[in-house]
Amino acid sequence: MVNEKLQQLEQPLKEQSLDVQGFESPRSLMETVDEDLVPLLDLAHRPVISARQFSREQLVQISRLASKFETEPQRITRPLTGKILISAFYEPSTRTRLSFESAWHRLGGDIMSITDPASTGIAKGESLYDIGEMLNHYGDMVVLRDNDEKAVYEMLESLRIPIVNGGNGVDEHPTQAMADIYAILKAHPELAIANNIAEDKKIRIGIIGVPGRMRTIRSLLLFLSLFSDGIKEVLIITDAPDIFSDGQQQELEQNGLNLRVSDTLDNELPELDIVYINAIAWVSDTYEEHGTNYRLDSTSPLKPGAIILHPLARGDELDRSLDNTPFNWYFAQARGAVFIRMALLSAILKSYS
Amino acid sequence: MVNEKLQQLEQPLKEQSLDVQGFESPRSLMETVDEDLVPLLDLAHRPVISARQFSREQLVQISRLASKFETEPQRITRPLTGKILISAFYEPSTRTRLSFESAWHRLGGDIMSITDPASTGIAKGESLYDIGEMLNHYGDMVVLRDNDEKAVYEMLESLRIPIVNGGNGVDEHPTQAMADIYAILKAHPELAIANNIAEDKKIRIGIIGVPGRMRTIRSLLLFLSLFSDGIKEVLIITDAPDIFSDGQQQELEQNGLNLRVSDTLDNELPELDIVYINAIAWVSDTYEEHGTNYRLDSTSPLKPGAIILHPLARGDELDRSLDNTPFNWYFAQARGAVFIRMALLSAILKSYS
Amino acid sequence: MVNEKLQQLEQPLKEQSLDVQGFESPRSLMETVDEDLVPLLDLAHRPVISARQFSREQLVQISRLASKFETEPQRITRPLTGKILISAFYEPSTRTRLSFESAWHRLGGDIMSITDPASTGIAKGESLYDIGEMLNHYGDMVVLRDNDEKAVYEMLESLRIPIVNGGNGVDEHPTQAMADIYAILKAHPELAIANNIAEDKKIRIGIIGVPGRMRTIRSLLLFLSLFSDGIKEVLIITDAPDIFSDGQQQELEQNGLNLRVSDTLDNELPELDIVYINAIAWVSDTYEEHGTNYRLDSTSPLKPGAIILHPLARGDELDRSLDNTPFNWYFAQARGAVFIRMALLSAILKSYS
Repeated sequence: MVNEKLQQLEQPLKEQSLDVQGFESPRSLMETVDEDLVPLLDLAHRPVISARQFSREQLVQISRLASKFETEPQRITRPLTGKILISAFYEPSTRTRLSFESAWHRLGGDIMSITDPASTGIAKGESLYDIGEMLNHYGDMVVLRDNDEKAVYEMLESLRIPIVNGGNGVDEHPTQAMADIYAILKAHPELAIANNIAEDKKIRIGIIGVPGRMRTIRSLLLFLSLFSDGIKEVLIITDAPDIFSDGQQQELEQNGLNLRVSDTLDNELPELDIVYINAIAWVSDTYEEHGTNYRLDSTSPLKPGAIILHPLARGDELDRSLDNTPFNWYFAQARGAVFIRMALLSAILKSYS
Repeated sequence: MVNEKLQQLEQPLKEQSLDVQGFESPRSLMETVDEDLVPLLDLAHRPVISARQFSREQLVQISRLASKFETEPQRITRPLTGKILISAFYEPSTRTRLSFESAWHRLGGDIMSITDPASTGIAKGESLYDIGEMLNHYGDMVVLRDNDEKAVYEMLESLRIPIVNGGNGVDEHPTQAMADIYAILKAHPELAIANNIAEDKKIRIGIIGVPGRMRTIRSLLLFLSLFSDGIKEVLIITDAPDIFSDGQQQELEQNGLNLRVSDTLDNELPELDIVYINAIAWVSDTYEEHGTNYRLDSTSPLKPGAIILHPLARGDELDRSLDNTPFNWYFAQARGAVFIRMALLSAILKSYS
Repeated sequence: MVNEKLQQLEQPLKEQSLDVQGFESPRSLMETVDEDLVPLLDLAHRPVISARQFSREQLVQISRLASKFETEPQRITRPLTGKILISAFYEPSTRTRLSFESAWHRLGGDIMSITDPASTGIAKGESLYDIGEMLNHYGDMVVLRDNDEKAVYEMLESLRIPIVNGGNGVDEHPTQAMADIYAILKAHPELAIANNIAEDKKIRIGIIGVPGRMRTIRSLLLFLSLFSDGIKEVLIITDAPDIFSDGQQQELEQNGLNLRVSDTLDNELPELDIVYINAIAWVSDTYEEHGTNYRLDSTSPLKPGAIILHPLARGDELDRSLDNTPFNWYFAQARGAVFIRMALLSAILKSYS
């Protein structure tokens, strides 16, 4: 075994594979959309809690800015030098936390992390109101993840510095959904500028998951509803009962989204341009698994040119046999998560790199 | 509920309220006291363990420096660039840790945090002496919180870089007391320069808590004794027995402090210029609550012009109904905690911003 | 007690003791060896997993670079500004973690730490392959400690950024062994340039520990085998059975190392130029103690001029009575651990300060 391992070490690091994963695609978005920072001015010094706060123009321009960062990383300066992010993750997370922290560091800022609820005043019963008041003076921005969906609103009562919702219980996860939208716009830049997309050019999006139980999907659907004119249909694939929370379906349909529900996967796959899959829902301090009957692998009857998205971490629902296929955009989506957060943070702090 | 929450998000962030909380007062301290860095030179490259190490002139000048940072934050440079703080909190704390880390970052330095005793050599039974020897080479300063009051002295045996006591058991918490003094000097800058304060101008300070059990109060009383000539009386309000530790009362009285003890609050309140309240005492790895019969709220018979201080986190003893009154200086005190630590760290490292 | 403690505080910080500990010795290494960065070019953008990856020339030049950093710290610039280290310690460690983080910070880089396995996607059963894929986009280098020796190889499957093994189970700990070699070369710079060392000038090295159970010793022996021409003998002192793992002894002897095993210490000590001692072996998520019958203190019959090395943290096997003797090179070894890691990280990122 020693020799075999040593051989592995003698290989150079894996070259980045061919662009089967959309790593090159930010360029096309940058070329399709003109930069316009005006819609972003309204985000200056604002909290980001809900997908409902964003307009289509804002999402497009944040994505445009992200694509600039991704395409020309060497031009990123350090506009946040001297600024402090308070990264408060009261619920376990590495992916989201590291992606925020990476974004902040790449813009030059410093970070103070709180990863353990037991290490905080919360252990002494301190209110989120008081914690928020403290954070006003100790940092320049807060990212909060908490399994209590009301926590971010409570902290907002006293905060005078911006806060970004990094996932609040089963409610929302707007920046994850922003990473999803960024990946979608890279694959379909025409959505970004569309007004009158011909019916046969509209795309069909399948979402394997439970909108009323998964915060990433809740936020994503709200964002997708802003692009309704380019989306023929959003298909929810699930075998769960009661898949929407109160009023959720109505709100989305009022926003113009064409929703359909199906409990089968493979017969729908050949018609889907985008397949979003997730099996984990964080509920309180644990998680539920949903849709474990649905599974994508390299034998799935995917439409040529379709892309697969997954917020990760993945389980058995998304097989590694897909990793080296052109359907794999989930790694590009994870990569884009840093750049889209850089763009959002820049907009909030009006510090365009 | 969705609509109501969304409405909250459409509000701009709360404007900072009028200066009912002393946020503007550092300016008056800066104007009352002349800058003189000479008393601070003795602090260069020294450990900070006990309030006993400080002279009145040092406290005044550290506060003066803090008021300069607080008044003119835009003039703060990054003199600690390339310096590393080792932030070792073996006892849970966020408020103190973040305030140190924020101070260090705002001066431009980098930080390595140790927040979990289980993650350290201590788990292997490593001595604090050996840990101190290691830290000499890995950083430029240590902040230590430990529920064992002897720990900081043990580490000091091998340390050749400065260490700051961030709270050692029931013993001391000198930098918290420094933040208290800073708030007091902002409210009463005449204390900073007083020599012959007329009897009727002297102030009366009430402390709700147990001096022998609460490290913040132990350190604060030592500092207050340096300003005895401007203080008519320090009144300890408590219903606990044995409130002083061995020799504590004698030491303070020898230093000139006029101490009195009372077990009632409301009949004393109308005569107090400063009311300091705290209910939590950290003892070993848990905490005791004291004085839960004493409670301040907006109906308390406070003297007009009086200020309330609290080291926070607070419990029921300090009601939120006071937050928007001019008595609330506890938020200003928390805010000042960052600036006073910036001043102290600057003095220790002789890196005046 | 108060007065006694206060007296302690009135002392200036302990002056660094005379150079009984090799703190001055990097200069001699710098003077003995000529700088030659060519052997380091092969390390650029490579993972560092095993001691087997290194040539003698590379070790010598990394040590040479470290000695430059240690001798002239004021000349260190900040070439890693804007680079992010992901410091993933899934097994408790402070010493190794802080030494890597200190090295990275001193070169100007930013750090994101993962110290709690429960805080990561691993809790959700995420594969190391997927975590590695994520880290590609979030940072510029990974340091991994994991009690599963296969973890680092699994992550390597997807990583396109360099990873450094910070200790993988009972397998290897190459950067600790590099710190050991750096200390050895400082004490015996002739090893660095030796070709035909006269038999009577060759050194004898004693290692108290179990090569097959202790990762630090496994890596160190591999490195020592590169310097066989200057080493008369490596003596393993242990009372354990089965001290070598499969093929370990053969591999070392094939590399030219002259190995001997003894179960007594004191009769061997007078002939040893270097005594390496360690009693703790990390096995899975706990540790074993070995060789507790062997103990060094100031009465041990050490050869004049001999040096003692210990990877620390130490237990009873290494008595504090040795700390202020010239035999104590273990503190210098710990100090050098930062500089040798600076040198290694610089070589991997081709960012020579």
